[in-house]
Amino acid sequence: MTRALEISSPSNPRVRAAVALRERRERTRTGATIVDGARELRRALNAGVVVVEAFVCDELLAGVDAQAALDALRASPAPIHRVTPAVFAKLAFGDRAEGLVAVIRPSSTALADLEVPSDALIVVLDGVEKPGNLGAVLRSADGAGAHAVIAASPRTDLANPNVLRASAGTVFTMPLAEAPTDIVLQWLRSHAVRIVATRVDAARPYTDADLTGRVAIVLGAEDEGLSVAWSARDVEAVHLPMLGIADSLNVSVTAAILLYEAVRQRATRVNAPD
Amino acid sequence: MTRALEISSPSNPRVRAAVALRERRERTRTGATIVDGARELRRALNAGVVVVEAFVCDELLAGVDAQAALDALRASPAPIHRVTPAVFAKLAFGDRAEGLVAVIRPSSTALADLEVPSDALIVVLDGVEKPGNLGAVLRSADGAGAHAVIAASPRTDLANPNVLRASAGTVFTMPLAEAPTDIVLQWLRSHAVRIVATRVDAARPYTDADLTGRVAIVLGAEDEGLSVAWSARDVEAVHLPMLGIADSLNVSVTAAILLYEAVRQRATRVNAPD
Repeated sequence: MTRALEISSPSNPRVRAAVALRERRERTRTGATIVDGARELRRALNAGVVVVEAFVCDELLAGVDAQAALDALRASPAPIHRVTPAVFAKLAFGDRAEGLVAVIRPSSTALADLEVPSDALIVVLDGVEKPGNLGAVLRSADGAGAHAVIAASPRTDLANPNVLRASAGTVFTMPLAEAPTDIVLQWLRSHAVRIVATRVDAARPYTDADLTGRVAIVLGAEDEGLSVAWSARDVEAVHLPMLGIADSLNVSVTAAILLYEAVRQRATRVNAPD
Repeated sequence: MTRALEISSPSNPRVRAAVALRERRERTRTGATIVDGARELRRALNAGVVVVEAFVCDELLAGVDAQAALDALRASPAPIHRVTPAVFAKLAFGDRAEGLVAVIRPSSTALADLEVPSDALIVVLDGVEKPGNLGAVLRSADGAGAHAVIAASPRTDLANPNVLRASAGTVFTMPLAEAPTDIVLQWLRSHAVRIVATRVDAARPYTDADLTGRVAIVLGAEDEGLSVAWSARDVEAVHLPMLGIADSLNVSVTAAILLYEAVRQRATRVNAPD
């Protein structure tokens, strides 16, 4: 590794700058964030995300994913810093970073940048607070082949490292935008996107909704449920049957159930003779 | 609170004994475990779970759930110890315990104790390692009205406090059993339970499987997938379409998608004229 500089001091300025990106304020100031883990980093590189610099701890590198990520890193113009395990422990979150951490510049999150094909399947997450929930919704949306995820009036920043991690790196390819709830609603209407919102008190089950064509599935984040804007007349409210003692599922699980019902309906429609 | 004893020392023997239950060895030795959080504790009490003792921190008690749980606790014979915030910090896991922690004795987890109605919907989780995944599967199973969750050759103990927390307390009402994989397979066959297993390489999509009647949905836990025993001839293999860049979803999300497909099929069959 001829390009590598060995860093053994936790107070090294590059290490400190990278660690500072765990704070939202610093992410906002710099437009950069920090990504942990081999799979996530590999997906970022594959997606063409700009990697500013990477930190590698040889002693902790393990697994096929880590080697593939390192190979991809070496093929990129990003500087790679070798660090000691003590320095890496300061850089990494938890124990799942597999010896790799990188500073990246995530792409735009403007609503205007989203493409809206005629069969667009969109997830809107209203007022999400926990970055892990947003990340998990991204992962489910990726699996179901959704076209975009929109965070309406989020209470977390979309570049939070926990979003990246919980998304398993799908955040780098799934189009993601954020805007205030009223702007999102206006944007959906202007693009003729039908709106299906999940509410615990809705009369119709979600399986009765038409989830084909250009449609947005709207979910309230965490316990607060949906904001009042989603009670408009053109919003179809549906519920998920809750047959046990609990009154709701985790928002990313609910998202996945509705998204895969959309996948099922779309496959059926394609295959049906009509 | 006339019954309450104030504890201000973190080295109080009752506090130490409760904290020790965070370790599997101590849970196995005592047959007890520790539950965090108001919602979880309330669900344990509602389900008739034996509460050995509870620890309450008045300064941290917040919310309707916490008050309801405290009322239910007071109506139970369990001793309630008041503790200072410093002591509570030692007892509680993370910051979501809402001022309430209790030592409980979870119920039996023997396969022989499970009831198997003719339309039994069962989830089998093979080789689960992360207690959070088992808990999340329990929560999805509860929502879908499943009859039981079986942990086949689990690599975590079912009384792990993270199972309780991730299940949102549904672990106290959802019948849960554990046994070695070969015994589980034998038990399913002896009860004429059809077996549908998810594998990434299966040819049929899960929506083509009949998920009505007496059926078990089998999921491999985490990255290792299913053990070879589930490749038997009488096991129907299905896959979940993965339409994005990732090759799998979280196991609890996969479980929820299959469980709610079962709910959909069962509702359709009931409503259809036949």
